[in-house]
Amino acid sequence: MARRNYILETITTVFRLCGFQQIETPAMENISTLTGKYGEEGDQLLYKILNSRIHESRNKEQLAATFSQALEKNLNSEMITERALRYDLTVPFARYVVMHQNEITFPFKRYQVQPVWRADRPQKGRYREFYQCDADIIGSVSILNEAELVQMIAMAFKRLGVGVKIKINNRKILTAFAEINGHLDKIVKLTEAIDKIEKIGIEKVKDELQLEGFARIDLAWINEIASVKGNNQKTIETLKNYFFDSEYGKSGLSEIESIFDYLKVINFDFSILEIDVTLARGLNYYTGAIFEVKTDDPKSTFTGSILGGGRYDDLTGIFGLPGVSGVGISFGIDRIYDVMDELGLFDRIVLPFFTPEVMIVNFGGEEEKYGIGMLLQLREAGISSEIFPDQAKMKKQLAYADAKKIPFVIIAGNDEITGGAVVLRNMTSGDQEKIETAALVQRLNMLIRKTS
Amino acid sequence: MARRNYILETITTVFRLCGFQQIETPAMENISTLTGKYGEEGDQLLYKILNSRIHESRNKEQLAATFSQALEKNLNSEMITERALRYDLTVPFARYVVMHQNEITFPFKRYQVQPVWRADRPQKGRYREFYQCDADIIGSVSILNEAELVQMIAMAFKRLGVGVKIKINNRKILTAFAEINGHLDKIVKLTEAIDKIEKIGIEKVKDELQLEGFARIDLAWINEIASVKGNNQKTIETLKNYFFDSEYGKSGLSEIESIFDYLKVINFDFSILEIDVTLARGLNYYTGAIFEVKTDDPKSTFTGSILGGGRYDDLTGIFGLPGVSGVGISFGIDRIYDVMDELGLFDRIVLPFFTPEVMIVNFGGEEEKYGIGMLLQLREAGISSEIFPDQAKMKKQLAYADAKKIPFVIIAGNDEITGGAVVLRNMTSGDQEKIETAALVQRLNMLIRKTS
Repeated sequence: MARRNYILETITTVFRLCGFQQIETPAMENISTLTGKYGEEGDQLLYKILNSRIHESRNKEQLAATFSQALEKNLNSEMITERALRYDLTVPFARYVVMHQNEITFPFKRYQVQPVWRADRPQKGRYREFYQCDADIIGSVSILNEAELVQMIAMAFKRLGVGVKIKINNRKILTAFAEINGHLDKIVKLTEAIDKIEKIGIEKVKDELQLEGFARIDLAWINEIASVKGNNQKTIETLKNYFFDSEYGKSGLSEIESIFDYLKVINFDFSILEIDVTLARGLNYYTGAIFEVKTDDPKSTFTGSILGGGRYDDLTGIFGLPGVSGVGISFGIDRIYDVMDELGLFDRIVLPFFTPEVMIVNFGGEEEKYGIGMLLQLREAGISSEIFPDQAKMKKQLAYADAKKIPFVIIAGNDEITGGAVVLRNMTSGDQEKIETAALVQRLNMLIRKTS
Repeated sequence: MARRNYILETITTVFRLCGFQQIETPAMENISTLTGKYGEEGDQLLYKILNSRIHESRNKEQLAATFSQALEKNLNSEMITERALRYDLTVPFARYVVMHQNEITFPFKRYQVQPVWRADRPQKGRYREFYQCDADIIGSVSILNEAELVQMIAMAFKRLGVGVKIKINNRKILTAFAEINGHLDKIVKLTEAIDKIEKIGIEKVKDELQLEGFARIDLAWINEIASVKGNNQKTIETLKNYFFDSEYGKSGLSEIESIFDYLKVINFDFSILEIDVTLARGLNYYTGAIFEVKTDDPKSTFTGSILGGGRYDDLTGIFGLPGVSGVGISFGIDRIYDVMDELGLFDRIVLPFFTPEVMIVNFGGEEEKYGIGMLLQLREAGISSEIFPDQAKMKKQLAYADAKKIPFVIIAGNDEITGGAVVLRNMTSGDQEKIETAALVQRLNMLIRKTS
């Protein structure tokens, strides 16, 4: 919890710093808002809510008959179920924008951190309930927004201490490839094929495409693209030559160049940014820029993406508000957690109040009262602290502090109280020192900052 | 959002400061975990989730028949629905404790802030989805825990700036009243009746109780209790006399006195604490202390409770772990929001990053690039800022800043850039000043802190 909160807090601080404002939407959406937005598989994964009080219906026979019929069509019946749990944050956001279009000031920069639900069979790395963490700018077609997002991504992962490679592509570049090769309709096949270059090699990719009807002689560009991969400047030059006659290609490339131009102004570290023309995530969805982030830390075994995003030209059209372009990113919180855990990054971080910093041993009677007074002082000084609530055996109390990983324990018996002092035990080293009560807060602040 | 977050952050900071650790539980619980815990009305208000993929079932006829039967019994059929959305945080917490009993170090101090769902018809002040904010200590019978919670309540409301009266009672006192009057079985009726003293007067309360079978002559204590209301010391004396022969009464009173003794040690402000023997919330649930908080700000029209809590001796018994006593409190976030809003308390509070602090006007070209460089500097200095993403008309850009209540706008045209300066516009006053770029961050930090 504390670790996940640390990740969320770091990312949302960057969001707020960059002018994004938080919204939340209800967990339940009308089923009609959600169905048809995530493909057939997505529709199956919606958690549908039984209409409340339907058992009070007067017409139970009709209800039962409706249920029976609805079973044939994925239970799509408003008489049985009107609402479902949100599947992602994007569709509820689009619904929200349309609903509040008259109150929203555009361009609208919003972020949202909430759980989503998917009726997957639980398995490692897949949860039925998990957090999404999205930031979007909608109502502006300026490419400056894309550059802002890239800068925000870099800022967030830098603060998290995760080494990354930000991959960037443009849907128009993928369209251009398909168009130039005379198969605009086969953009999906083409994209899927070139995505496999590293895995199966260039020749096998060409084999696949030949089977799909592409002329092998037209596919020489794949060799060129592969040979310049990892070198942004050469990639841009290669694409420029190849796209000299393609409007799609020139437009997609120009958008990438604009992003680079903006980033140059802020001395962006381009070693973490890579043009990857095989990147195709959300192909049916994105219309311009496409983003993906992976960790490039050599110590990580993690190969999955930890962030995705892109520009969509018509998010809100399906809800009756066409022509509102947007661009956004979504941080994969659970995966970022796994990467940071694997790299041991949490060990280096001071998690505020992950556990109380101090426990006061409870000896009962006057000593307990003395402890309670001390407790208030510590808390007012911002030191997270507790007193063991029962007058249990010392051994049991220390075992409690140990189990909870509380770093410092205060022992104040009659002798210490009379002498105006306490014994402070460092639970990690086992060292004990006698400290005057008046100097306790100062000493603890020093120790806590030091051990942190 | 920002305001609600401010309330949650203030309260959870106090929780952490006092050694409580956060947990979260899944939104969905097994229906069997939830049913029967909230009374019949509560069962009706559960949002039940249709089992996923039931439309893929091979035996649709049987399923339809089951549905038809289940309609007769509040749809309690695992074939149709196995899970429901949580109704509160307490029952899921109890389930969590039983499930993780071998990993948890007791006493366990946990806090939890998550939404809950109730299938109420939406109306003012009642939401289908709302946040609960709970803190509990379980696995310790020490009354020190009760005192800790009272201190935490006072600390939280002090930080929120809300004037409150903390009411305290004990279930055993209510039991004693019923027992002494010879009607231990009528504790609910008795409690309901004495709760109405202020509303309908003592005599009518006695009338009601007489009808229930209480002997009027035995009810003289009601006059005594009412006459000392608001005076804790006199209330304790009165009860002591009345309870001289009641074990329940003596025990309940002694627990209250212990809480007072603990609070005396920390010089607690007793003017905000009131023993109220008519307080009965959660009667079927609480076994010891009972807490309730109302605002006593004379400017507030709000009479409802903004916090409730108490001790329950057997929360986890229903899940197979008997004998674990606990005590907890639940902050009514939405109501606290309403009170703070009514009292204008939000106006006085600096909501961090509620809105960006600075917007940079976008003139395009070189000026835009200059702005982007400035933007990064501001953000790195911790100033929440944005640049308008499009090269729109000045008027439109200023209207955007105005609508978003951004307090400062930076205008940097060619002249300013050449002169190494910017124009800073205070959006509240309309004043503009020319500032050297090198001094900008310092000047803004001063202004932001001043206007806050």
